[in-house]
Amino acid sequence: MPQTIRISKPTARRLTMYLRVLQSVVETGGMECISSHQLGAAAGVADAQVRKDLASIGGRGQSGVGYRTRELHETMRRAIGLQKSWRAVLVGAGNIGRALLAYPRFHTEGFELVAVFDHAPSVVGKRVAGLAVQPMKAIPATVRRSGAHFGIVAVPPSDAQNVAEILVASGIRGLLNFAPRALQLPAHVASVNVDFTEAFQRLAFETTNQSSRSKRTTGA
Amino acid sequence: MPQTIRISKPTARRLTMYLRVLQSVVETGGMECISSHQLGAAAGVADAQVRKDLASIGGRGQSGVGYRTRELHETMRRAIGLQKSWRAVLVGAGNIGRALLAYPRFHTEGFELVAVFDHAPSVVGKRVAGLAVQPMKAIPATVRRSGAHFGIVAVPPSDAQNVAEILVASGIRGLLNFAPRALQLPAHVASVNVDFTEAFQRLAFETTNQSSRSKRTTGA
Repeated sequence: MPQTIRISKPTARRLTMYLRVLQSVVETGGMECISSHQLGAAAGVADAQVRKDLASIGGRGQSGVGYRTRELHETMRRAIGLQKSWRAVLVGAGNIGRALLAYPRFHTEGFELVAVFDHAPSVVGKRVAGLAVQPMKAIPATVRRSGAHFGIVAVPPSDAQNVAEILVASGIRGLLNFAPRALQLPAHVASVNVDFTEAFQRLAFETTNQSSRSKRTTGA
Repeated sequence: MPQTIRISKPTARRLTMYLRVLQSVVETGGMECISSHQLGAAAGVADAQVRKDLASIGGRGQSGVGYRTRELHETMRRAIGLQKSWRAVLVGAGNIGRALLAYPRFHTEGFELVAVFDHAPSVVGKRVAGLAVQPMKAIPATVRRSGAHFGIVAVPPSDAQNVAEILVASGIRGLLNFAPRALQLPAHVASVNVDFTEAFQRLAFETTNQSSRSKRTTGA
């Protein structure tokens, strides 16, 4: 029963990386089978770790052949919970919020945006990506009525904790947080932080590491 | 010599997570020492893995005491390459680009945005965050003159590869890619993809996993 296993955050992170690789393989209709080595190379993970991660969600490979691509893709989507449709509300109709709404792959991936909120009176009532922006005080009623699962926090850092609490009190089960501030949340609420600084730091790291690598390669 | 070690992408990812934890500890001026267990718990990584990762960049802990917080913070910043200042250019002055420019922590982290480009004639010449938007054809000369290290690709997926190639040909060493499309890059160029779909998938995963966890806890 893959739905009831306990998976750590780093494992979840690796699984979504494998899913991304698999997705592009399935979309291009290329390979019928994929090995843990191929998956690992594309995702930057050691083969043995790939096999362990896939076994943990019930993915079965065959020695010398690998995993059946389509079957593994389906197993992963089920384990990740993408077989169902997730409804999300967005708080903050600023640049980040608008960029998300315009994101091309959003709807094809099982996510549906059902409401947008903002506290600025000049924005409330305007239509953003087909949705009329609602005032903040409408959050509890709208979240309950729509049965939304996720809240997207795209407000300034100073408002983030307050917005998160309103969303959680309204019944939201998971938060996607764009504010560069850690949120204090009850244990039953999941959260993922999207931190642009972290992305830059990783890039700085890889660039530093990359150049020392090339230097060594050309110098040897 | 931490600058010349070879570090895999997953390790780099974990190191930036530790850095984030350390940074908030240092900012709040709290603990003088931190154990691998405390760091691991905050970053969602096993203690032994934390010790291995920190040893790989030259971080030294003391048994029963842990790591000196400030010292480790400095060691990590050096290993990640944050002791120097990184100059970046942005291609695409749309919502994502504007959101990045408005990002509050950007400048304090050693990153400096030196130029913005867009292909839309209606945007070229306008000022965005204090920078006049330049036409795409200005990329090579501006990148060379400014000595920029990083390129931020915030254009539609169909333009991303082309933009990446122009940036690389102009001397850019690392790309932060916001387009939901994998880039084909020469081996000496580093890249980090920021994929919002991936963030949503991780959230779906954690929410699924979280609820089965709570169910088991309350049911047992």
